[in-house]
Amino acid sequence: MIDLVALDADDTLWHNEPIYTSARERFCALLSRYEPAGIPDERLYQVEMRNLQHFGYGVKGFVLSMIETAIELTDGRLESGDVRAIIGFGHEMLAAPVTLLEGVRDAIEELAASFPLILITKGDLLHQETKLAGSGLGHLFTGIEIVSEKNADLYRSVMRRRGVEPTRFVMVGNSLRSDILPALEAGAHAVYIPYEGTWIHEHVGPEHLRDATYHEIAAIRELPALLRGLPMASARP
Amino acid sequence: MIDLVALDADDTLWHNEPIYTSARERFCALLSRYEPAGIPDERLYQVEMRNLQHFGYGVKGFVLSMIETAIELTDGRLESGDVRAIIGFGHEMLAAPVTLLEGVRDAIEELAASFPLILITKGDLLHQETKLAGSGLGHLFTGIEIVSEKNADLYRSVMRRRGVEPTRFVMVGNSLRSDILPALEAGAHAVYIPYEGTWIHEHVGPEHLRDATYHEIAAIRELPALLRGLPMASARP
Repeated sequence: MIDLVALDADDTLWHNEPIYTSARERFCALLSRYEPAGIPDERLYQVEMRNLQHFGYGVKGFVLSMIETAIELTDGRLESGDVRAIIGFGHEMLAAPVTLLEGVRDAIEELAASFPLILITKGDLLHQETKLAGSGLGHLFTGIEIVSEKNADLYRSVMRRRGVEPTRFVMVGNSLRSDILPALEAGAHAVYIPYEGTWIHEHVGPEHLRDATYHEIAAIRELPALLRGLPMASARP
Repeated sequence: MIDLVALDADDTLWHNEPIYTSARERFCALLSRYEPAGIPDERLYQVEMRNLQHFGYGVKGFVLSMIETAIELTDGRLESGDVRAIIGFGHEMLAAPVTLLEGVRDAIEELAASFPLILITKGDLLHQETKLAGSGLGHLFTGIEIVSEKNADLYRSVMRRRGVEPTRFVMVGNSLRSDILPALEAGAHAVYIPYEGTWIHEHVGPEHLRDATYHEIAAIRELPALLRGLPMASARP
């Protein structure tokens, strides 16, 4: 019943947000000795959002946003050694080992035996490729789409290029905003696997979920059985 | 005889290197008042090369490399206002209007009437998409590949995924290193259109060209006639 299974990567296959959370904490600690003129974490998020349309997603833009925020909040007192430290956070983020979520390897191996799998992920091109290589899962995917934004048009384009009917396509991920709602809008199935600590930018208000019919599972280990049962499985909520 | 024509984007379809050259000049001017401990332009290139494997290509990594270089060459004296200025160079680079090379629009329109065209480009995902949209040429391409590196494996993968034989595929671009030699290595045709001021990283020594058989034209306006004549046209050099 399903011809193509697409999976999100960050915080669906491997841990990602904890790496950003840790960098944010170190960033706030670094700024604390300047008595910053604002709340670093809040201001950083605003700067990230302002820069998103120019920088896109990923570590490099995040680092540039941290530097901009730090200069602003210290009113120009930021020392260049601390700029260097912030860039160092970025280098460490890019070099962080890939840590799979529990059960991912078994689930992906089982799925790959039954379905063609593709990866659809936002972020920096080279970094996402490097993480997939580091995950040891690359050979189980027949395609990789690293994209600048996940919206309904993107999912329509992926399905059209791969010759798959929306009713035979399923998107799996931890972001209601990027993985679930736009895939549903494009007529596809969607499976939501919540991740504790998902980036706030990926949250959506309950008003957007009112008419959404998607599947929700607690962990990726439940995915193979769910997909084998589609479309008979009753969707939630 | 040719089933698929792939074109490079930066400095093949639109001017790109002049935007970097201008930023490098402004960067050197900014550092000049610190009496930097080294030659900014040379040191910047070294830092760029050191960071390439982590950052990949594109403006964001270039900006981070400029900041790292500036801190290093000023021995920590760099003022945060100048860090902000360097980030400002990056914002301006990302917002720079797309300026097509002479004859590009006519040539691409003529080519698109005879061949499926795809774009293969390195760089930041969002920025390259934005430039293609800004070029007004997007509708003439049947596909876009924004990639982290252009090597023979990349060209083999593009041809395999699109079901094209190497002898019926041609890559067109201004970089011997990225567009011409790896395409030839993958068994494809290649058309070199030199661009004055191509980034030094894209240069190759004459020893690499000794056995290379590719076509060379002075301007893209010669491309449609050349491709219509393939494979009868004699390759140069």
